[in-house]
Amino acid sequence: MKVNQIDVDNSMKIIDLINQFDDSGVLGAGRVARACNILAEMIQDEDMSVFMSLGGPLIPGGMRNIVTKMINEGHVDLIISSGANITHDLVEAFGGAHYRHEGKDDEELNEEGIGRIADINVGSDDFTIFESEITEIFEKISSKKQVVSIQELLYEIGLLVDDENSFVATAARNNIPIFAPGLIDSMMGLQLWIFSQDHDFVVDAVADMHYLSDIVFESEKVGAVLLGGGLTKHYTLASNVIKGGLDAAIQITMDRPEAGSLGGAPLEEAKSWAKAKCGSSLASVVGDVTVIFPLIYAAALDKISGD
Amino acid sequence: MKVNQIDVDNSMKIIDLINQFDDSGVLGAGRVARACNILAEMIQDEDMSVFMSLGGPLIPGGMRNIVTKMINEGHVDLIISSGANITHDLVEAFGGAHYRHEGKDDEELNEEGIGRIADINVGSDDFTIFESEITEIFEKISSKKQVVSIQELLYEIGLLVDDENSFVATAARNNIPIFAPGLIDSMMGLQLWIFSQDHDFVVDAVADMHYLSDIVFESEKVGAVLLGGGLTKHYTLASNVIKGGLDAAIQITMDRPEAGSLGGAPLEEAKSWAKAKCGSSLASVVGDVTVIFPLIYAAALDKISGD
Amino acid sequence: MKVNQIDVDNSMKIIDLINQFDDSGVLGAGRVARACNILAEMIQDEDMSVFMSLGGPLIPGGMRNIVTKMINEGHVDLIISSGANITHDLVEAFGGAHYRHEGKDDEELNEEGIGRIADINVGSDDFTIFESEITEIFEKISSKKQVVSIQELLYEIGLLVDDENSFVATAARNNIPIFAPGLIDSMMGLQLWIFSQDHDFVVDAVADMHYLSDIVFESEKVGAVLLGGGLTKHYTLASNVIKGGLDAAIQITMDRPEAGSLGGAPLEEAKSWAKAKCGSSLASVVGDVTVIFPLIYAAALDKISGD
Amino acid sequence: MKVNQIDVDNSMKIIDLINQFDDSGVLGAGRVARACNILAEMIQDEDMSVFMSLGGPLIPGGMRNIVTKMINEGHVDLIISSGANITHDLVEAFGGAHYRHEGKDDEELNEEGIGRIADINVGSDDFTIFESEITEIFEKISSKKQVVSIQELLYEIGLLVDDENSFVATAARNNIPIFAPGLIDSMMGLQLWIFSQDHDFVVDAVADMHYLSDIVFESEKVGAVLLGGGLTKHYTLASNVIKGGLDAAIQITMDRPEAGSLGGAPLEEAKSWAKAKCGSSLASVVGDVTVIFPLIYAAALDKISGD
Repeated sequence: MKVNQIDVDNSMKIIDLINQFDDSGVLGAGRVARACNILAEMIQDEDMSVFMSLGGPLIPGGMRNIVTKMINEGHVDLIISSGANITHDLVEAFGGAHYRHEGKDDEELNEEGIGRIADINVGSDDFTIFESEITEIFEKISSKKQVVSIQELLYEIGLLVDDENSFVATAARNNIPIFAPGLIDSMMGLQLWIFSQDHDFVVDAVADMHYLSDIVFESEKVGAVLLGGGLTKHYTLASNVIKGGLDAAIQITMDRPEAGSLGGAPLEEAKSWAKAKCGSSLASVVGDVTVIFPLIYAAALDKISGD
Repeated sequence: MKVNQIDVDNSMKIIDLINQFDDSGVLGAGRVARACNILAEMIQDEDMSVFMSLGGPLIPGGMRNIVTKMINEGHVDLIISSGANITHDLVEAFGGAHYRHEGKDDEELNEEGIGRIADINVGSDDFTIFESEITEIFEKISSKKQVVSIQELLYEIGLLVDDENSFVATAARNNIPIFAPGLIDSMMGLQLWIFSQDHDFVVDAVADMHYLSDIVFESEKVGAVLLGGGLTKHYTLASNVIKGGLDAAIQITMDRPEAGSLGGAPLEEAKSWAKAKCGSSLASVVGDVTVIFPLIYAAALDKISGD
Repeated sequence: MKVNQIDVDNSMKIIDLINQFDDSGVLGAGRVARACNILAEMIQDEDMSVFMSLGGPLIPGGMRNIVTKMINEGHVDLIISSGANITHDLVEAFGGAHYRHEGKDDEELNEEGIGRIADINVGSDDFTIFESEITEIFEKISSKKQVVSIQELLYEIGLLVDDENSFVATAARNNIPIFAPGLIDSMMGLQLWIFSQDHDFVVDAVADMHYLSDIVFESEKVGAVLLGGGLTKHYTLASNVIKGGLDAAIQITMDRPEAGSLGGAPLEEAKSWAKAKCGSSLASVVGDVTVIFPLIYAAALDKISGD
Repeated sequence: MKVNQIDVDNSMKIIDLINQFDDSGVLGAGRVARACNILAEMIQDEDMSVFMSLGGPLIPGGMRNIVTKMINEGHVDLIISSGANITHDLVEAFGGAHYRHEGKDDEELNEEGIGRIADINVGSDDFTIFESEITEIFEKISSKKQVVSIQELLYEIGLLVDDENSFVATAARNNIPIFAPGLIDSMMGLQLWIFSQDHDFVVDAVADMHYLSDIVFESEKVGAVLLGGGLTKHYTLASNVIKGGLDAAIQITMDRPEAGSLGGAPLEEAKSWAKAKCGSSLASVVGDVTVIFPLIYAAALDKISGD
């Protein structure tokens, strides 16, 4: 297929740019266009459940409202998140914020009680509020149940959080389950452990697998939106092995395949493991999620509404 | 400054997404927004000459019409290109095309006479036409001049090429000089050598420096758009040393700084060499030019027209 | 400090090359030399506990004997591993193997029951054996205990595995604890879930935090060797927050910082979070672990024995 | 082929580690071992000319003595260098030096007259000496010849430089030609231009192609060692098209293929263009040249002497 040169214009819509990318079809532009097409097809396919994994600093990095919108619009059916993205969602829900880093060095930041994630800063005051709020929530939940799975815990938390921009709260209200296999490795995990020290409260590490595999079995087809990350990506892929793999998937990450890490592996590799079906629609975009995903999702919204 | 979460919508314009990126201000989205702001300012500043360097497979990869548009709109004043981008511009001008690669391996492509650039294919038939056309053009030019600089050669070629989408032709007609310090390392360089074997025709390697430095001296300020590449980027930076460095610059590349290559170096480094002024406006975007530059330029068009 | 040019020679020892790198001190060579110096100091410091995190395909990729040697030599005091590295260690312990990938595509591999990790292949037969062996081991363990932490589980498994090259077995015999916060996201995690379906066996997700934090508290100083990975790296860093952060650390990964992922973040960033102490000795090497770590560890062995 | 686990030991030789990498055969370790084998075979093959390209900051980064040693040992027959590597070789030959960067920011460095290349610093005083010395050399050469090719110029310079560690001087004394298609884009290129302003001295851009193609035609086989870079790599590849491509090649670079740049392209791609022969021995290593090349060359010295 011939590579068409890309035209841009004043007042251009995102969908028109993505269509130009589609007509070019090569390098990054081609990969972005194919990912957008697959995303729109996944959302539109009524027989397909859409799983989304959230790795890397997506919530601190500005993706919170998009995730929440996808839940509200019914464009995602299941979320697999890092513990950090859940923690940072709640930090904002409890009134905290993230700030653009202004160039202090890490020892200065340490003295001022500011944590750095690349060019994003978060203040320890906001974590102090997080700690007291989440502990209060744990109290409420543990008074009802002594043993919970991680997914149940996140559901209960979501119901108790009052912020319409919170993806954890919005997911709970829309009955979209959130799984977080590495939850323990996060600020929330730490608070969970501290809380469990003097409360009769057990979080079962394995219990979610049953519920997750039920969802996979009950889905006629499964598509996946894999944003950053290693563990969250792998868990999403692996949960679909039981039915021969994903039917469609897109991934956006800056990680690369050479050193063999799962995060950087191209999606094709998943076929060998029956984590993606042979013949499935796959697109791997090498790029920064905070640029590429808003672009793709905005264009997919047009593709969907245009039908 | 607080990180605002990014909102997207159906029917969204590119400029609105870039404004969202600006309000977020972090990670890739922040870098893209800052690069867009600097680009718009460079274009709008009547005292600033805009230099643009073209490295990597930009013309095969779909950027040809954008470069040509920038020339026609008066948004670029001087181009520094790899020999390959000039060659591929002329391949299309002479009726050739680039194609999306369909997965054959490199030994099969070799047998079929197809060259591969990542996921782009080019056929040897198109190069055969290129060879006869460019030789005819060399005949015409050499009948008028025996010694030319590379910039003069490209200007003369541009005047003889009849394709309104060709950036080489459009630059010549708009008196936008094209420099190509590595021209010899390209298909055109090869043809130039073959031609010079039996013609009295010398291309002076050093001659362009005088003209280029005159332009730098006569420019009140210089801004640079650095797309991909090592040599083309460095030549652009180095040509500005004589006046204390660039006043503004953006760069888009997937190359990284760790191994010390010039292509991957952040623009800040140029300040130490007086290739960018202390206090200059600089933005380095890590990303695929074919995605990022159309996005940035389209939004810059809105910023410009909005004033 | 002046950059000395690097000399190499016939019959050269690794330690001599690393010393040359040290005298050069710049780019990758300089980073490798500094990481080697820190590693040797961590091992030699009798007051320092050495934690090691294992992310990415280290065991399939050839690092198994080195990890085992480090345990036997007393050069590592605590391991934080991905579930996959534990699974692949046991695959080899149960008689399986990894193979160099010979270029088949992923759909062909799927048909032949071969999983691919970059250029490494693993056969499904070896996983079948893994499944029956690990299930037998679960039987034995669950007959003694109904609730275990992940670390306890791995210790009990290690004692039941008869392979002196297995790092899981060697760690158990040397009382080196292995933590695996994301264990559930691996083949072993899957088998654990299947087993727990019809057995009274609970793996407590939070329970290990107590033991881990005790070790941190009891260590006068802690140093970390961070190989690849996101979750395993973060868990190692985060476990040290309670005492103000690591005293020394080296990391080797191909992941990069631009997109903000934890795996690619330079170690300096950990200081802002009090995950590494201000003033701690840190070295971040951008490179392939399978090349860089054997090189560094071999040279560190010389540095240690030379004292 | 089975992946063998890598063993390391106290007092280990580099060749023994590379042999361990060979027995592992996967990921970075496998690529390094294959590159080492190809390098040793290229050097030992008496019918094969070895071309070496020098891109990126190799001389500032510590590779100078290795390049010089390769010339003295007869392990390289032709060099294609960036202008910068030649400039920095002469900076050291004229008594200058490179220094490890100590963390000042680029505006401070600018004020102190220090240029930065990643973590390497160079002082403007050393460039001042370079300028006067090279101008004196240009005087001597131009008094003999009015028109020179770049290769001839570098040969004449080499003869006039008195430093046994200089690769430019050593190459001249050993009749190893140095090509530098992008010479003009370097400090030396700038001095050349300034000199040519008031001297009758022309550097012919195309003239070297004849000599270079003669060497290619006269070589029974050609192998290439491609270190970093875009232009220097491409020129090396392209010069071999006339005989159907290279017979063997290794490349070491941190650049990646996704965005389509020539520097990051895997060597396989060269087959489609007949720049490497179908069936040729090729190895592409993703890594930092300053670590990987000393390692590979040191081991190759053992392989060669062992026969």
